[in-house]
Amino acid sequence: MCRERNFRFLIQYDGRPFCGWQRQPNGTSVQQLIEEAIESITGVQYVLHGSGRTDSGVHALGQVASSSITTRLEPDELTRAINAHLPPEIRVVKSSVVPQNFHARFSAVEKTYRYLILQGDIRSPFAPWYACWINRKLDEGAMADAAQYLTGEHDFAAFMGSGSSVKTTVRTIKEVSVRRGGGFISIMISADGFLKHMVRNICGTLIEAGKGVLEPGQMERILLSRDRTSAGPTAPAEGLTLIKVTY
Amino acid sequence: MCRERNFRFLIQYDGRPFCGWQRQPNGTSVQQLIEEAIESITGVQYVLHGSGRTDSGVHALGQVASSSITTRLEPDELTRAINAHLPPEIRVVKSSVVPQNFHARFSAVEKTYRYLILQGDIRSPFAPWYACWINRKLDEGAMADAAQYLTGEHDFAAFMGSGSSVKTTVRTIKEVSVRRGGGFISIMISADGFLKHMVRNICGTLIEAGKGVLEPGQMERILLSRDRTSAGPTAPAEGLTLIKVTY
Repeated sequence: MCRERNFRFLIQYDGRPFCGWQRQPNGTSVQQLIEEAIESITGVQYVLHGSGRTDSGVHALGQVASSSITTRLEPDELTRAINAHLPPEIRVVKSSVVPQNFHARFSAVEKTYRYLILQGDIRSPFAPWYACWINRKLDEGAMADAAQYLTGEHDFAAFMGSGSSVKTTVRTIKEVSVRRGGGFISIMISADGFLKHMVRNICGTLIEAGKGVLEPGQMERILLSRDRTSAGPTAPAEGLTLIKVTY
Repeated sequence: MCRERNFRFLIQYDGRPFCGWQRQPNGTSVQQLIEEAIESITGVQYVLHGSGRTDSGVHALGQVASSSITTRLEPDELTRAINAHLPPEIRVVKSSVVPQNFHARFSAVEKTYRYLILQGDIRSPFAPWYACWINRKLDEGAMADAAQYLTGEHDFAAFMGSGSSVKTTVRTIKEVSVRRGGGFISIMISADGFLKHMVRNICGTLIEAGKGVLEPGQMERILLSRDRTSAGPTAPAEGLTLIKVTY
């Protein structure tokens, strides 16, 4: 029985070899490879709607995408068939049939990102590739102090990358935490949505606080400035992972 | 003050890009790259003595090597200088000055290897690259039962790869353990020494026991046979890591 059903896919990827989630004229994207896999299986070009873009080099443990697909395959069969057409850096970990009104982007209510920082003199070859390595001691207390200014509804224009057009730069950060453990500093950020480069710009600014270059209290002024140049640099993509999308 | 001292190096490597520890006419070895790094620093070709070979694709968390080197650099400076000449897959994690009679190979009294097996339907891109993935349930109890026959002094000819000339195929396994945890099955083996491919041939045979293809009690007969064809296949290199060399 070959009928159209709305599928939701839970997707993991190692972002290093890709130009990000979204199709690009130059470079190979995760979206493109999964769309091509589905086309190989069904013979039809479907558009896969991701919960949002991830930048080039950013990883995902819990990206979600959806598409209405006509196939006789059951969800688990579809998972296996898609994975058979994908490089090992991308895996569909679960496919499920969802109501027609489910849309991975428009139905999302919250996203959680993790930024992982590894400190030490020598970067072991066994260190996880999804952590950013900093050869300098960071004061995670100062980072946590700086982070507290970010929770709640704010205009995050100061943390938005250039070349982005959005209706509003106001977002609500539900939770930010900075924790040290196992040789890592882990920054977790949940929000109702993120502007372009917002997580990496926030993390780059928190790292400045950790280095003592920036006083935690300056975060408030940076937010109010709405000026990108007042915030810290964009943290490298390698430490960032999309952990979860909540619906 | 430029004087000759005997250096001991603690080395980690991701074995995937290399043809193993030892210099080979074809392919890039870990030994070669570190020797070349030392030559770049000192201007002299030194031979680096490893605790033993590791096969192509095998990893190390605790490889040890030694060499008498004339340099004015202190151990920590030498560590940094060598690492600056190495690809990120190889790191010297510690250099120390040791007595002249220390030799990484001849002074070694015990080596410990770990073989890591990851089970599951889907291999996540976040799964560690130093684990071997098996898409099939293994009975770790049967593996542990089979492993117990290996401890003690035995003739391990049945587990020796071909093309090896050794005075004796007798070795003493101090400890073998098979444990499940965190989605992995971990095999740890310590011995006074290992024959060519011995750990991987033992692990391949234990995996056969885990699959139910081989009864644990057959291990005794395999050992007594001294016949390589009676044991299981050679487990893939990717799951094997040299954990520790004891002196």
